[in-house]
Amino acid sequence: MADPRFYSVHGPFTLADLAIVSAARLSPGADEALRLMDVAPLHTAGPGEISFLDNRRYTEAFAASRAAACVVSPDMVTRAPAGMALLISDRPYKAYALIAGAFYPEAGTEYTGDPAHPIDASAIIGEGSRIGPGVAIGPRAEIGRRCRIAANVVIGPSARIGDDCLIGPAASLTHCLIGNRVVIEGGARIGQEGFGFATGEEAFVKVPQLGRVIVGDDVGIGANTTIDRGSGPDTVIGQGSMIDNLVQIAHNVELGRGCIIAAQVGISGSTKLDEYVVIGGQAGFAGHLRIGRHARIAAKSGVMRDIPAGATYGGFPAMSIREWHRQTVALSRLTDGKRKSDDS
Amino acid sequence: MADPRFYSVHGPFTLADLAIVSAARLSPGADEALRLMDVAPLHTAGPGEISFLDNRRYTEAFAASRAAACVVSPDMVTRAPAGMALLISDRPYKAYALIAGAFYPEAGTEYTGDPAHPIDASAIIGEGSRIGPGVAIGPRAEIGRRCRIAANVVIGPSARIGDDCLIGPAASLTHCLIGNRVVIEGGARIGQEGFGFATGEEAFVKVPQLGRVIVGDDVGIGANTTIDRGSGPDTVIGQGSMIDNLVQIAHNVELGRGCIIAAQVGISGSTKLDEYVVIGGQAGFAGHLRIGRHARIAAKSGVMRDIPAGATYGGFPAMSIREWHRQTVALSRLTDGKRKSDDS
Amino acid sequence: MADPRFYSVHGPFTLADLAIVSAARLSPGADEALRLMDVAPLHTAGPGEISFLDNRRYTEAFAASRAAACVVSPDMVTRAPAGMALLISDRPYKAYALIAGAFYPEAGTEYTGDPAHPIDASAIIGEGSRIGPGVAIGPRAEIGRRCRIAANVVIGPSARIGDDCLIGPAASLTHCLIGNRVVIEGGARIGQEGFGFATGEEAFVKVPQLGRVIVGDDVGIGANTTIDRGSGPDTVIGQGSMIDNLVQIAHNVELGRGCIIAAQVGISGSTKLDEYVVIGGQAGFAGHLRIGRHARIAAKSGVMRDIPAGATYGGFPAMSIREWHRQTVALSRLTDGKRKSDDS
Repeated sequence: MADPRFYSVHGPFTLADLAIVSAARLSPGADEALRLMDVAPLHTAGPGEISFLDNRRYTEAFAASRAAACVVSPDMVTRAPAGMALLISDRPYKAYALIAGAFYPEAGTEYTGDPAHPIDASAIIGEGSRIGPGVAIGPRAEIGRRCRIAANVVIGPSARIGDDCLIGPAASLTHCLIGNRVVIEGGARIGQEGFGFATGEEAFVKVPQLGRVIVGDDVGIGANTTIDRGSGPDTVIGQGSMIDNLVQIAHNVELGRGCIIAAQVGISGSTKLDEYVVIGGQAGFAGHLRIGRHARIAAKSGVMRDIPAGATYGGFPAMSIREWHRQTVALSRLTDGKRKSDDS
Repeated sequence: MADPRFYSVHGPFTLADLAIVSAARLSPGADEALRLMDVAPLHTAGPGEISFLDNRRYTEAFAASRAAACVVSPDMVTRAPAGMALLISDRPYKAYALIAGAFYPEAGTEYTGDPAHPIDASAIIGEGSRIGPGVAIGPRAEIGRRCRIAANVVIGPSARIGDDCLIGPAASLTHCLIGNRVVIEGGARIGQEGFGFATGEEAFVKVPQLGRVIVGDDVGIGANTTIDRGSGPDTVIGQGSMIDNLVQIAHNVELGRGCIIAAQVGISGSTKLDEYVVIGGQAGFAGHLRIGRHARIAAKSGVMRDIPAGATYGGFPAMSIREWHRQTVALSRLTDGKRKSDDS
Repeated sequence: MADPRFYSVHGPFTLADLAIVSAARLSPGADEALRLMDVAPLHTAGPGEISFLDNRRYTEAFAASRAAACVVSPDMVTRAPAGMALLISDRPYKAYALIAGAFYPEAGTEYTGDPAHPIDASAIIGEGSRIGPGVAIGPRAEIGRRCRIAANVVIGPSARIGDDCLIGPAASLTHCLIGNRVVIEGGARIGQEGFGFATGEEAFVKVPQLGRVIVGDDVGIGANTTIDRGSGPDTVIGQGSMIDNLVQIAHNVELGRGCIIAAQVGISGSTKLDEYVVIGGQAGFAGHLRIGRHARIAAKSGVMRDIPAGATYGGFPAMSIREWHRQTVALSRLTDGKRKSDDS
């Protein structure tokens, strides 16, 4: 269930309602009158909740899911667990987008606030915290003690910030829970909607982004870095992680404790880093990967597969650093003769 | 002609005036008294307008141009169409910069606004739109109906925003025309001056940037993404295109309908994408390229040449994805023996 | 010594005090009562100052340093110049971080300002300068004549900006000295703390960042670009340099005069570019490199070594551009046979 502090759920809807909303068809024997209260990810969904399967990586999670209902493509029907009602669609992600939009019609609405009261009367600001000029704070937001919030920062409704945090100028934070002693540099963007839409021949359909950003204690986040909120699951930055400037962290990414992410790194949606992963500048990660504990990834690497714990990787596509060095040497040898004749 | 809503043209100037301003010399027989009213790109220039040629890619456009006058290098003089007056310079881009600066001396002046009236009295805000605290809106700007403009957004003079748009916190928009149902995330920068200057031994000469950013309906623009305005032509984002966070789109770039641009992509000046092009994260494009309809470019690619419609490319320099995979495999085989002896 | 306009030094401390603070041990014969007034980089430190050595690149600077005291690892003790007192630590960077934190306990504190007086009464604003709505300016900041400061800009305490500068919307500048005729586009972040911390098994220790950003005359800085302040030395942008959008410039980087840095380039800490270096988009540089005068680096290059003056480099790892082209051709030839059989 989406955090009610940030999202208001509509409904309930019957399975038949949702079939109409999503232009999907019911599986044989599914109960049209089944009442659905909410959407949820496959691994957390339970009774009264509907989920979706759109990526074969998650077939096992689907087979083990306790969701009451699920949107799937026709070829996945036979993998469904017993008793799960199915909505069958050739484009399950789009169908899910429409269903989630029915439950959460306001999810993508930008909060504006009241110019007469930039700091909402219901916001709570802890003892000893200092708030600069031009700061806007939404309803029910909570800021801990001894924080410093620089000029022109924007904090969204119900966002929570711990004690002893520093937020740099013109940063914005929304749909997030921030720990203690967190430093966020100027212009960082935390918690906006990620890049979520279902594609097709006609116009794209926006997928409501229903998660949050959870930032652990002692985290550092660099200037102009962007961290999108989760799409349903959360985006998580583990305790003590250090993130440099201009880094992109997409929805549902999880960083374990103590990760170090140099400038201009990009991590695509749903990739998970275990503890103490170290990433050099400008490296990029495909989505849905798993990067093991203490792995080290060289600057500018392009990571397209999982990386085991303790490994050091480099290159594009990324490989073990030893293999990358070997390839670099081998490639250089290919041109040895040519180089001599050209240059001498 | 530059859009008079955004730029005030000075002049007219005679060809002789402009020869002095630009330290260029007139072509034999050119009419010193020819009156020029404005600068314009080669393909749109007409009577009373002066253009320039600085890149051999545009020699054909030069030969076909209807500009009254043009700044060119000496070796291009013979390619001029009949009747075109020429200003000849060894550094035509610098000469053009000086001429454009004479016509548009205020082009690079930053708008500041009046602290006593952050929202200018002449700005028009449509019914049902909500404007957050700290928002600044310049003279003659127009915002449509039912928009949500978050806190600390800055909208420049004469900018136009359609209906049902969402603008995230601390974004800034200037010299732009934005369609309906456009979503712009926090910190995005739309319409500032691009990277335009003529180089040389001495100091660089700024080239006035006289175009706009045109954003179609239903576009999404990610957090902290930057889209520079055109230099004379416009920068154009086609209807329904989706642009992720931290993307750089340089002056005069054009995206067709329905393009998808993942995070941290960079597109250099004057490159044009046809409809439904899909680009993976961190890919980069040289300037002045043409990317065909439905082309797909893998993450982290470095694109240095045109790409045909429907093609899938990857690698650096980018090549067909099949060839890139073959090269990856071939390179890996070069080290097979070494790998075994090292690792066994 | 850190610039007293930006940093207040505490102390003095005895060598014995600092040994306790940093959990280091004194070298045999070192004077426990030695009074230290400040921290300083190896090459500028003098009597009364303590420095540190944590990178073998700087062993010569250590051997030549006139610092009164220095934190070093045990294996470096024998390289110390005569008369230098040593604090010996297995983790000298962490030990230095703790010592610098004792001298500068407020260094990382975010300035907030007073909402009732967004422009501090002690700030000086030159004749003819225009300041937009929502601008915050800290105590003792100085802005020259005829500047234009756009809406929602934030300028920190004691920052100095020359004449005829343009600062775009929502940019922030702190701990910096900016020349004349500088153009800074919207959302640029100048002078925040860099990525400085000592790693270890337990939590990271923040290293106080005690330098400034020095920007020469006629510099251009693009939208959403980030330039961190120096850690002790300064970060320096040479006169007339042009920096595009979304560029990352880390602490202690120095750019000579007239450098051109295209969009999304990243330059790691302490790398130094001589005059007139030209860098293509998305190129990346490791730290502590030296790039020679008039060097040219192709877009997307990954530079891991010094580059000589006048050279043109490309590729990843970056090599001479001729060698890179040769390797590209050689790699392509490896797949010639395969390509024919596949594609015909």
